[in-house]
Amino acid sequence: MTGGPAGALTALGLTLPPVPSPLAAYVPAVAAGTLVWTAGQLPFVDGVLTCTGVVGPVASGATTGSTAQGPPTVDEETATAAARTAALNALAAAAAVAGGLGNVARIVKLTVFVASAPGFTGQPRVADGASRLIAEVFGDAGRHARSAVGVTSLPAGSPVEVELVAVLGTPLPS
Amino acid sequence: MTGGPAGALTALGLTLPPVPSPLAAYVPAVAAGTLVWTAGQLPFVDGVLTCTGVVGPVASGATTGSTAQGPPTVDEETATAAARTAALNALAAAAAVAGGLGNVARIVKLTVFVASAPGFTGQPRVADGASRLIAEVFGDAGRHARSAVGVTSLPAGSPVEVELVAVLGTPLPS
Amino acid sequence: MTGGPAGALTALGLTLPPVPSPLAAYVPAVAAGTLVWTAGQLPFVDGVLTCTGVVGPVASGATTGSTAQGPPTVDEETATAAARTAALNALAAAAAVAGGLGNVARIVKLTVFVASAPGFTGQPRVADGASRLIAEVFGDAGRHARSAVGVTSLPAGSPVEVELVAVLGTPLPS
Repeated sequence: MTGGPAGALTALGLTLPPVPSPLAAYVPAVAAGTLVWTAGQLPFVDGVLTCTGVVGPVASGATTGSTAQGPPTVDEETATAAARTAALNALAAAAAVAGGLGNVARIVKLTVFVASAPGFTGQPRVADGASRLIAEVFGDAGRHARSAVGVTSLPAGSPVEVELVAVLGTPLPS
Repeated sequence: MTGGPAGALTALGLTLPPVPSPLAAYVPAVAAGTLVWTAGQLPFVDGVLTCTGVVGPVASGATTGSTAQGPPTVDEETATAAARTAALNALAAAAAVAGGLGNVARIVKLTVFVASAPGFTGQPRVADGASRLIAEVFGDAGRHARSAVGVTSLPAGSPVEVELVAVLGTPLPS
Repeated sequence: MTGGPAGALTALGLTLPPVPSPLAAYVPAVAAGTLVWTAGQLPFVDGVLTCTGVVGPVASGATTGSTAQGPPTVDEETATAAARTAALNALAAAAAVAGGLGNVARIVKLTVFVASAPGFTGQPRVADGASRLIAEVFGDAGRHARSAVGVTSLPAGSPVEVELVAVLGTPLPS
């Protein structure tokens, strides 16, 4: 079968990455009843964060900069791409406990934490990097509730962290 | 029937507002099994935030001010009222997927994010604006667990963001 | 029976504390279906926070210091111990609604908020204070998903806040 979320992923030219190892004493995702809950996932590709820093304005022409207080800044476009990468890792974590992406029926909730420079309020645009991937992969079954929140800092200096709650089961044919 | 949460809302002189449009690629609430999860809701009234800024001390006699780093500050009382407004929007979102507030049996969990100036630790008082509305509308069925968290900034500069998890079904007669 | 989570707790020399009173208009934990959700729990011992401040570097030899902006800083080790204490309070809250720790079958999800000085990115190490306690008490049934997030400030100046979702029921014999 080439349809469903797995087929959509292939059509996007994406493959589920290996599930990143947790940074600490927890697991990447847990199933409980019909729900699966992922840990907060970071934009790791092959074990390396795609970028680090807090999201905010950067000097013209650059994609990263620095704040008065030290942590480097990441521009919104770079952070949006990182949110997409983190969401892909979250899907990989959910698929691993579900026994494959084909056993993830629906995405219910995303929480997207965005490490933000003071005054940066574009969290919804950054979080859309995650939400759009979910929509592209799951279609109607990917219609999710979402919170986007600007925080001080995130593990390993990541600009974004994405967690999700999904429903286990076979998606309805669409 | 005039009782129940819908009757309580009327008695408070409140009506459920139209569900605010999401700022981005997600939906206001999702039902999964017996639970409904809302997106993070902001204090929109007729499409406009009631206030913007981070919560913290402001000059005497004012309800808003500014911080050294730029974002305006909102006083605690104003933010508490905004939390109540955001909670009303969260109820509207839950009711919309439940088929009416009368099909929301219980409120389980609130998370209240409060955009906070450095050192502001009064998040519980601000979040009480949301919790008290839930109590007034649902009574015992509104007894919820809650986290209140002080964050850097929130979408569109909102001082508060409220999300909730509720149980679908008909409330028990009280 | 001396085994299971209650036995493990005893073997650790720990007892479940009285459930801390909420700081505001909510309850410490709520059961819904087979899940129990706790409120965000703080490192209270006998009604007093074990420490206050934001987590970040402190002067050599000290366990607390101060930041340029005012709030005192707490070192990582002290905050990690506080996360363990907050997790113990979260277990107490869950046990209270479950009718005892022996009726908590599994821990599904932890969210650990860490009040963080700008640039502090060691949230996973701090959150491990909570995760390790869960592992010690629940063993395999304590394998949980987790998000660790660095925030501006927390209620009453606490450096950490821990919430959890658990499954009700009798743990399988291990």
